[in-house]
Amino acid sequence: MTLPFTPSPTLLPVPGFWWLGENIGIKDTSLDFAVLYSEDPCQSAAMFTRSNMPGAPIIVGREHAAGGGLQAVVVNSKNANVATGFSGVERSRLVCELLGRELGLDPKRVLPSSTGVIGVPLPVEKIVAAIQGVKGRLRQNAASVQAFSQAIQTTDTRPKVYSCKVGGATLTAMAKGAGMIEPNMATMLAYMATDAAIPQQRLQAMLKRVADQTFNRVSVDSDTSTSDTVVVLANGRAGAVDEAAFEVAMLAAATHLARAIARDGEGATKLITLTVEGADSPAAALAFARSIINSPLVKTAVHGGDPNWGRFVMAVGKVFSHPVRVEDLSVTFGDPAEGLTIREALTRDEGEYKPLLARMSRYLKEHEEVVIAVSVGHGPGKERIWGCDLGPGYVEVNAHYTT
Amino acid sequence: MTLPFTPSPTLLPVPGFWWLGENIGIKDTSLDFAVLYSEDPCQSAAMFTRSNMPGAPIIVGREHAAGGGLQAVVVNSKNANVATGFSGVERSRLVCELLGRELGLDPKRVLPSSTGVIGVPLPVEKIVAAIQGVKGRLRQNAASVQAFSQAIQTTDTRPKVYSCKVGGATLTAMAKGAGMIEPNMATMLAYMATDAAIPQQRLQAMLKRVADQTFNRVSVDSDTSTSDTVVVLANGRAGAVDEAAFEVAMLAAATHLARAIARDGEGATKLITLTVEGADSPAAALAFARSIINSPLVKTAVHGGDPNWGRFVMAVGKVFSHPVRVEDLSVTFGDPAEGLTIREALTRDEGEYKPLLARMSRYLKEHEEVVIAVSVGHGPGKERIWGCDLGPGYVEVNAHYTT
Repeated sequence: MTLPFTPSPTLLPVPGFWWLGENIGIKDTSLDFAVLYSEDPCQSAAMFTRSNMPGAPIIVGREHAAGGGLQAVVVNSKNANVATGFSGVERSRLVCELLGRELGLDPKRVLPSSTGVIGVPLPVEKIVAAIQGVKGRLRQNAASVQAFSQAIQTTDTRPKVYSCKVGGATLTAMAKGAGMIEPNMATMLAYMATDAAIPQQRLQAMLKRVADQTFNRVSVDSDTSTSDTVVVLANGRAGAVDEAAFEVAMLAAATHLARAIARDGEGATKLITLTVEGADSPAAALAFARSIINSPLVKTAVHGGDPNWGRFVMAVGKVFSHPVRVEDLSVTFGDPAEGLTIREALTRDEGEYKPLLARMSRYLKEHEEVVIAVSVGHGPGKERIWGCDLGPGYVEVNAHYTT
Repeated sequence: MTLPFTPSPTLLPVPGFWWLGENIGIKDTSLDFAVLYSEDPCQSAAMFTRSNMPGAPIIVGREHAAGGGLQAVVVNSKNANVATGFSGVERSRLVCELLGRELGLDPKRVLPSSTGVIGVPLPVEKIVAAIQGVKGRLRQNAASVQAFSQAIQTTDTRPKVYSCKVGGATLTAMAKGAGMIEPNMATMLAYMATDAAIPQQRLQAMLKRVADQTFNRVSVDSDTSTSDTVVVLANGRAGAVDEAAFEVAMLAAATHLARAIARDGEGATKLITLTVEGADSPAAALAFARSIINSPLVKTAVHGGDPNWGRFVMAVGKVFSHPVRVEDLSVTFGDPAEGLTIREALTRDEGEYKPLLARMSRYLKEHEEVVIAVSVGHGPGKERIWGCDLGPGYVEVNAHYTT
C-alpha cells in the first residue's frame, strides 16, 4: 500500500514555526510553560470541549480562534484556569495581551491553553515574568519541539508527538492527555503545525472530520475535560498541497495521538481497540462502543486478563435505547479466526470451551494492545473506539491529586 | 419525631413464611442456595432490570410475577444464568416446576433468581438435587432468615437485612449487591416478606414509588445488572394495616438496603450520600447526580480524602443537555455550615482558602459516610443518590473474576 504521505521516524521542526518548553515553577521543577509561534500569518482551525463548564482559556480561545488566523499558542500545565471566575478570564486575556506585545502580534492571534488542577487561581505573575523576552528564547530545532511537547504534560507518562511529510510540506502534531478523557467535539490538548497552504474553511472542515474519527473516539475514564482543545496552524510556506493526501496525513497523526492518549491512560497497562459492527446505525454502534469501553467491569477484566465475555453482554444490554438479541451477539478477542462467539460458547461442550477461554485469557495477558470486536446484529452501523484497562494505578494517580 | 413503624434491632421471622439458606456446591463451600416459601397465598409485587440482555430467571420471573400471586422464591448465587440461551430459560422453568411440585404450588407462583457469573451454563442438576425434600428443611426462625440472606450473596462482604413492625404486621427485607450496580427500574436482588394484607395493585404501586427513591438511586460502578429483581410477598395474615405507614416502613427498609449496597460496593471504603438541588427539573437533578456519583475522578478523590471540587465542576459540565453557570454552582462537604462554595473559594485569599481545604480533606478522611451537597442554581429540581468511592479494591475484586 502506498501512503500519500511519509511518516517521519524523528520529530520534525516546521519551517517558519518557533517553539519553547520551559519550567517556570507553577507546581514543581518539571516543564510547565510552552509557546508556539509562527513568524508568518496562518490559516488556523480549532475545536473545543463541549463541557458546559469550559475553562477560561476556552472562553478566550473561542473568541480568538473565530477569526481563523491564530499565529501563536501559549500553554501552561499544572493549572487549568477552570472555575476561576471573572479574574480567570482576565488572566487568560492578560497572557495573550502580553505575549502578543512580545511577539508583535494582535493578541487575538494568540490561543491560550491551560491544563492541570481545576479551581485554583492561575499564578499569572509567573507566566507574565516568563513572557518577558520570550521571543529571544524561541527555537526552530527538534529539541525545542520536544520541550514544548513535554511542557504541556500533566499526568502523562510520556510525550505524544507525530511528524510526517506531505508533498513538500511538513506536519508536526502533538497532544497531551491521560485522565478526564472522553472528548466530545474536540479533545484534551492537541496542536498541529504545518507549512502547507490550506484555506481556512477547508482546514476547519478537515479538522472536524479527522477529530470525529480519532480524538472523539477515545475514552480513558468517561470524564469529559473542561479544557479540550485541538488546533492546527498552517503558515502556507510550502505552498499548496494535495489536500486529500494532507487529510490522510492529518488522520494518521491524530490516530497516532489518540491511540497514544488511550495507551497512556492513567494507570493503564493496555490499549484497547474496540470495534462494534452490525448495529442499526452508526449512532447505535457508537452508543454500544461507549457503553463497553467505559464499563469498569469490562476494563478491570481486561486488566486482569479475564475473558469474562458476560460483561460485554451486560454492557450491550444497558444501552436501553437499542435492544439486541443475545443470539445475534458475538465477541471476538484478537484474531477473528480465534474469536469466541456467544453462540459457539453456548453450544460447545465444556471440554472445548475451557481451552478456548484459556486461549482468550492468554491473548489478553500477552498483548499490550488488545483488539476486541463486537458484533450486535446484521445492520450497517459500525464504529471504532480506543480505550484502556482499569488498574490500581488509576486510583493511585487520582486519589491524592490536589493534596 | 414519631415514626409510623418500629424498626427492629434484630432480624424478625414473619408469620407464615419459611426460609432456607444452604450450600449446594455451585462454586465453593459458601452458601449458594436459598428458598423463601409462604404457606398462605400472597399478594405480590415485583420489578425487574431494564437491561436488554435480561437473564433467564428474569424472563421466567416476569411471566410468573405478572399474576401478582407469587408464593415462593428460589435463588442460587455464583451463577447468573444469563446469556445461556434457550436451555438457560428451560433450566429456570425446570427449577420452578420442581420446587412447585415439592411445595404443592403451581410453578407460576415461584419466582426464580440467579446471580453470579454471566454466560456459564447453570448447574441445574445441583439445584434439582437440592429441591428434593426441601420442604422438610425450611424453617421459620431468625437463623434461617439469616442463612437465606447469606446464600444470595456474591461479592458482598456482608448480608443486608432489615426488619420492622408496622401496627400488628412484620416486614423483613433483604438485598444483595456490590458490583454491576446502577439499577434502572429495579435493582440487584431484593426480597421483602410481610404478613400485612395489601391489595396487589396498591402493593405494586407502592413498590415502584419506593424503588424509585431507593434502589433506583444507587450506583456502585455505573454498570446495570442483567439480573435486577425486587419482590414483595404479602400473605395477609396480620390483616389490613395503615398503608401509608406501611409504605414509610417499606421506604425505610429499602433505604437501609440501598445504602448498605452502596457502602458494600466492591472495594469501597466510604458511602457517599449526594444531594443535588437547584436544578430546573427533577430529571435534570438526577442527570447531574448520576454524572457526579459515577465520575471515576470524583470517586477516586473521595477515596483519597482529596477535596478536589474542580472534579464536581467537570462532572456538572459534562451533562451537555443542561448548562449551568459556574457562578451558580456550590459544593458542600459535610456540615453545610462548614461547606465550601465555589464563589467563596474564588474570592477568599489563599490564607483563608488553604485551611478550608484542609478541613474538607479531614472531613473526607475521617468519615465512613460522606455527605456531599451540590447546588446548581435556583430551580425546583432536587434528587438524592447513593454511591461509593473507587479504590484499588474494586480492581482486585474484578480483574480475575472468572479466572
